[in-house]
Amino acid sequence: MIRPIIYDNNILKLLDQRKLPSEQIYCECSDFDSIVEAIRSMKVRGAPAIGVAAAFGFYFGIRDGLNADKVYSKLFDTRPTAVNLKWGLDRMKESFEKYGENYLEKTAIEIFDEDVKTNKKLSSHGASLFKGGENILTHCNAGALATAGYGTALGVIRSVFYKTKNIHVYVDETRPFFQGSRLTSFELREEGIEHTVICDNMAGFLMNSGIVDKVIVGADRIACNGDAANKIGTYQLAVLSGFHNIPFYIAAPVSSIDFSLKSGEEIPIEYRDVNEVAYCGGSRIVPEGIDILNPAFDVTPHNLITAFITEKGVFQSEDIKNIQRR
Amino acid sequence: MIRPIIYDNNILKLLDQRKLPSEQIYCECSDFDSIVEAIRSMKVRGAPAIGVAAAFGFYFGIRDGLNADKVYSKLFDTRPTAVNLKWGLDRMKESFEKYGENYLEKTAIEIFDEDVKTNKKLSSHGASLFKGGENILTHCNAGALATAGYGTALGVIRSVFYKTKNIHVYVDETRPFFQGSRLTSFELREEGIEHTVICDNMAGFLMNSGIVDKVIVGADRIACNGDAANKIGTYQLAVLSGFHNIPFYIAAPVSSIDFSLKSGEEIPIEYRDVNEVAYCGGSRIVPEGIDILNPAFDVTPHNLITAFITEKGVFQSEDIKNIQRR
Repeated sequence: MIRPIIYDNNILKLLDQRKLPSEQIYCECSDFDSIVEAIRSMKVRGAPAIGVAAAFGFYFGIRDGLNADKVYSKLFDTRPTAVNLKWGLDRMKESFEKYGENYLEKTAIEIFDEDVKTNKKLSSHGASLFKGGENILTHCNAGALATAGYGTALGVIRSVFYKTKNIHVYVDETRPFFQGSRLTSFELREEGIEHTVICDNMAGFLMNSGIVDKVIVGADRIACNGDAANKIGTYQLAVLSGFHNIPFYIAAPVSSIDFSLKSGEEIPIEYRDVNEVAYCGGSRIVPEGIDILNPAFDVTPHNLITAFITEKGVFQSEDIKNIQRR
Repeated sequence: MIRPIIYDNNILKLLDQRKLPSEQIYCECSDFDSIVEAIRSMKVRGAPAIGVAAAFGFYFGIRDGLNADKVYSKLFDTRPTAVNLKWGLDRMKESFEKYGENYLEKTAIEIFDEDVKTNKKLSSHGASLFKGGENILTHCNAGALATAGYGTALGVIRSVFYKTKNIHVYVDETRPFFQGSRLTSFELREEGIEHTVICDNMAGFLMNSGIVDKVIVGADRIACNGDAANKIGTYQLAVLSGFHNIPFYIAAPVSSIDFSLKSGEEIPIEYRDVNEVAYCGGSRIVPEGIDILNPAFDVTPHNLITAFITEKGVFQSEDIKNIQRR
């Protein structure tokens, strides 16, 4: 299976997700700054993967003698929406405050290893909701590439495929970054899982045609009431799923739950560079000087989410607040 | 104002819509085959504009001694969804059967001239639904570029702007052909109408933020019960509008009504070359060998449409079947 993050002797190798699928190039990060840049520019992306990369960034920063508070805040500021970033940093900070530098590398490796295990566990819980033969719609990339490995929403799909060998995935291309057409289709092809890429505006048409049995996506941050931030476009998919009576699942590790937030209204939405929308495949699509909006995430209210698939089991929104953190 | 189609002494000049906005190049069609090719390849697009181009195509075909049935059917087969194509061809055929070749050029010019007048009339009816100050969302391009001039949905927006000088347009980029970001923004900029381009998957987010007051789009074919085919993505916009209690308007000439169809189920949906989705700005986005779906249109059921804006006035779906054709 694809390895999006490889750690080897003080070098963190990140499969550059901006270049996939045409080029498979690892960007080698051996210091703090290169990790900050890799997260900000989305060489590494996906909430769990960002958490792992930030953990190694913290380790590199302290190793190189930088101030711990600055290291924490610079990494924290790279991407505002994914809470796994904070979660990873908090664990590193705790390790640092308890043991100093001694266990930082070990803690980062632990976070890395745990993420893969967590994904496999949540995927196995999720797979129990599928009987095989389903047509599943997914948005963005919540696969191995969004995590330390195996994936969340795509992990569930992987597990259903291993179990039943019978599943078809409809993949939203996911503008503007094309995580669906570039990354999810790349992963599904590697696994030999049947799939079809569509433009984001075709999802409703497919649902109305009766083709979509279930929708499953990841999450970047989940509030205590179950409101969930995920890639822009998720909210409208959830509305469409509700309208067509199609179950809508969120698959995410417990580290994506922000127990400090009552509702999704408190989740900060990242607005990214509008050139991500204006340019496409190197060409300018939108005329010069035109106003563009580029929110990277939206928040889906809990009442539109059928269930949450986590490593601790499958939950309804009202039970999110009671999940034990570890 | 922009002139998408210019007829001059047996040459039909079509502003090549595949090259806009970076290049403004007219493709000069002086024979039947070049018009067939221009419609099929979407150098000219938009239901009313296709009707006009087909009318001149019919004239060129007969002028050059081709068989009338073949001329009709070859033009008819270029694009299956827009009914204006058939409407234009039927008028030309009627003229041919009555008067022979003599009035074909005149009839084509009439169809051309009438379309602009029709659009101005429907836009004036539509503008009465707006008081100014609205934030309007539109999809695809139903502007001057989709017609002989002035536009339908964008014609209404134009008229509201002339009247109130106070309107903001949110423009869906409209994958895969980017009619929104390339064509609609180009037209709005020309007019100095304030607007913001978004990706198609951001519409729900904007609606949920309370930013969108009204949605207005064109149509490629309307059945007697008011079900309306339009650019892919329109259906889900209508569902989202309903969910957020936002009025959803269709602006189209009576020539877009197919009085032979009871409901939208009978409207043929065109599936186009999947490379339109796979390639973007000259670069391949979707990996090789991946299955892709590219339906060019979808059908919005009448119950999701607040009203129809036509040159004969503003109608509810139940009144569509009673509209007089001429």
